[in-house]
Amino acid sequence: MIRAETKPDDVHGMLASKGIVTSRGGRTSHAALVARQFGKPAVVGVMALDVDPEKREATIKRSSVVLREGDWVSIDGTTGEVFLGQVETMQPSLQEPALIELLGWADRVRRLGVWANADYPRDAERARSLGAEGIGLCRTEHMFFETERLPLVQTLILSRSEEERTEVLRKLLPLQRGDFEGLFRAMEGLPVTIRLIDPPLHEFLPAHDPLLKEVTELQTRLELRTGDIPAETRALESKRTMLDAVERLREMNPMLGLRGVRLGIHMPGLVRMQVRAIFEAACNCAEAGIEVYPKIMIPLVTHVDELRREQKSLEEEAKKVMGERNRKIRYKFGTMIEIPRAAITADEIASLAQFFSFGTNDLTQTTFGISRDDAETSFLAEYLTQGILPENPFDHLDEPGVGKLMEIAVKLGRKARPGLDIGICGEHGGDPKSIAFCHRLGLDYVSCSPFRVPVARLAAAHAALRGRPTA
Amino acid sequence: MIRAETKPDDVHGMLASKGIVTSRGGRTSHAALVARQFGKPAVVGVMALDVDPEKREATIKRSSVVLREGDWVSIDGTTGEVFLGQVETMQPSLQEPALIELLGWADRVRRLGVWANADYPRDAERARSLGAEGIGLCRTEHMFFETERLPLVQTLILSRSEEERTEVLRKLLPLQRGDFEGLFRAMEGLPVTIRLIDPPLHEFLPAHDPLLKEVTELQTRLELRTGDIPAETRALESKRTMLDAVERLREMNPMLGLRGVRLGIHMPGLVRMQVRAIFEAACNCAEAGIEVYPKIMIPLVTHVDELRREQKSLEEEAKKVMGERNRKIRYKFGTMIEIPRAAITADEIASLAQFFSFGTNDLTQTTFGISRDDAETSFLAEYLTQGILPENPFDHLDEPGVGKLMEIAVKLGRKARPGLDIGICGEHGGDPKSIAFCHRLGLDYVSCSPFRVPVARLAAAHAALRGRPTA
Repeated sequence: MIRAETKPDDVHGMLASKGIVTSRGGRTSHAALVARQFGKPAVVGVMALDVDPEKREATIKRSSVVLREGDWVSIDGTTGEVFLGQVETMQPSLQEPALIELLGWADRVRRLGVWANADYPRDAERARSLGAEGIGLCRTEHMFFETERLPLVQTLILSRSEEERTEVLRKLLPLQRGDFEGLFRAMEGLPVTIRLIDPPLHEFLPAHDPLLKEVTELQTRLELRTGDIPAETRALESKRTMLDAVERLREMNPMLGLRGVRLGIHMPGLVRMQVRAIFEAACNCAEAGIEVYPKIMIPLVTHVDELRREQKSLEEEAKKVMGERNRKIRYKFGTMIEIPRAAITADEIASLAQFFSFGTNDLTQTTFGISRDDAETSFLAEYLTQGILPENPFDHLDEPGVGKLMEIAVKLGRKARPGLDIGICGEHGGDPKSIAFCHRLGLDYVSCSPFRVPVARLAAAHAALRGRPTA
Repeated sequence: MIRAETKPDDVHGMLASKGIVTSRGGRTSHAALVARQFGKPAVVGVMALDVDPEKREATIKRSSVVLREGDWVSIDGTTGEVFLGQVETMQPSLQEPALIELLGWADRVRRLGVWANADYPRDAERARSLGAEGIGLCRTEHMFFETERLPLVQTLILSRSEEERTEVLRKLLPLQRGDFEGLFRAMEGLPVTIRLIDPPLHEFLPAHDPLLKEVTELQTRLELRTGDIPAETRALESKRTMLDAVERLREMNPMLGLRGVRLGIHMPGLVRMQVRAIFEAACNCAEAGIEVYPKIMIPLVTHVDELRREQKSLEEEAKKVMGERNRKIRYKFGTMIEIPRAAITADEIASLAQFFSFGTNDLTQTTFGISRDDAETSFLAEYLTQGILPENPFDHLDEPGVGKLMEIAVKLGRKARPGLDIGICGEHGGDPKSIAFCHRLGLDYVSCSPFRVPVARLAAAHAALRGRPTA
């Protein structure tokens, strides 16, 4: 799959592809993150490529080479190389006896748990087969992008009628319940950390600029009175309604906007439905004799009072479901630590949260004041080339800055709640250097994409060995 | 002046107005910030108002009241009330002998210095007359929005020719030099803190959406082949060039993008010109027998290596000017502390920076992960209404979060550089509650808009008195 860049609604195309190439974006672009999650090789930010999705072709700039749909291209996601034609490849096997033995040794010495980020049962199964001991991050919003669900979510966002919203939530509930049942079955009693909806709402709506173009074009045509006027008038009206909604939800800095727990507080019905789905799924599994252990994770908390509001109301819903079903489920409510203020006030936050998970992608963005969407193709790239930053803080945890905040959070959190579970679920959870730091910090586990689990097991063992006194 | 919201190019209209009303935006919107700076009363976020700038009128929603250009409206910026017609008012005098005596008592007990944020000589003069002991923040970008300068700045941004850029900088130099000379003359040897260019480049270019609309409309007209085709083709071409440039510079999250020191490193000629202008102006004043004390402030530093690159190259330029003019000027290079990472690594930063100034607007945004552009009219307003946050952190410094980071920065900074000058130049510098906190933190000064200087003098005295042992 070759694209200028990918968006959440390309996920199905990405799933169907063998590998992904984009002409824009960096290591933490949507394409790179999702490819890693799906275990697809990807080369992103190939700036020499001019991609024309309309013509279904891509041109290599300053050359006569044109790639057309169906042409063979081979890619190496590790080195970032793209080859014309079909290069001979081989499938690495993770079932080699020697590798299994080595990983067994690693498991005996490591102290860090190794969990996986998985949104679908198939990812969870793969993660377990590679040795994951739990799910550290299930991103529930991915489930909302599926073809039959997106229109429901859009209705939920756009509707001004309480009845209509209730109706949509009633339709979404069994779908979400099915998602979670699949995850619980795949994990059989291992912890499954489910993050409640996180992204800004506009991500579920059509993109703004093409819509503005369409509306302007229709308007101009109507003013010039050409073509089928009644049909164009109707089209204009419906497009304009959508444009108004998109503009109402548009934010100057969406990364710092109406997301995470803020969204949960703003649209309480949606997250309450999610919690109901989690506990109904858990009760269904328990009734079928399958052990379950959901950990419900509230994202983007900044102030303990957000958690006070949100966790209380959600725990009530959980208890309601367990009461209806007359079942007791083992569970925890916790939060992500991904905003500097949450790290600094971690003692207050741990008075309510039963676990912490560091979201180091966002924590790096806010601690540095850098938007990775913009920076990796502009000044951050310049900084790395010029040696102003020693390394990309999105690749390796920045120990003096972000790491210091994590240290403060671990100390304050465990002071307020001794034995507090603490993990990490950002991209850094799969980076050996960052894993070594997490070991030294005394975290309980790292969570990474399923394909990185074996690497993380080895890295965790290395970290533990390095800490041992030498003879 | 009544507007839906204001933008930097409305500044001249705002200067000419007696008071400002907007239908959108909150306490830290552009309208509110600039009005405070200019000492104009303002009421922002009057959502009941429908403003139609084309018709030059504003309608009060769900009523028949229409305000037309020239109609009388009276406003109370403290209570946020808007009155139809001309209400009787009186001008408060800051020259009352009783007030002068009271402020004199305050000055004798306060320990905090009181400086002012001032971009123009007239603001600096006003600030001094109200008792300011220095300028804590001169925002140099405001100077670039002036009518004759904006086209130059746009050429600078858009040009791909080194010669053209050099030519623009040559034209901007005497204008900037004049700006700084005026400030130095007004302050007569008191410290003048000049912040090098800070905002993202797109703020100097036309807004994206209207441009996209214009291009689409022209394109549609041309496709339908109506009107004056050669003229429309030319118009389309020039608009499209500008649109391409705007899109190239557009960022997903401009608040976390190519700004501050990042911009200085990206376009080194521009900030070097600013430093040259500062030192040429300083030498001119010194030659005229006027004492000067410039403090050059590098904004948005995240990592000490940014400062290492930037400060070194700028200090070389400063020394070059002093060499050319054979003058020694007293000066300091320092930085803003407005990003969490800068606060946490303040010891490294203080190894180079000779002063710190807390930019608590941005520090609050990054510490909370909140964009004030978006939040104050959406979830932050909800949070305050529902009591989820005890108060607006943009009004009063958030002591447990942002304040904690400031405390860390003060401690680390002074450990690395004993006696380090530390001030604050965010909006909080004019808020009595925040001033009391700054006193307890041991800052050297607060800097606020000129009209808040008397209030800050009193608040600083209150803070000092509260700290005294009672008899």
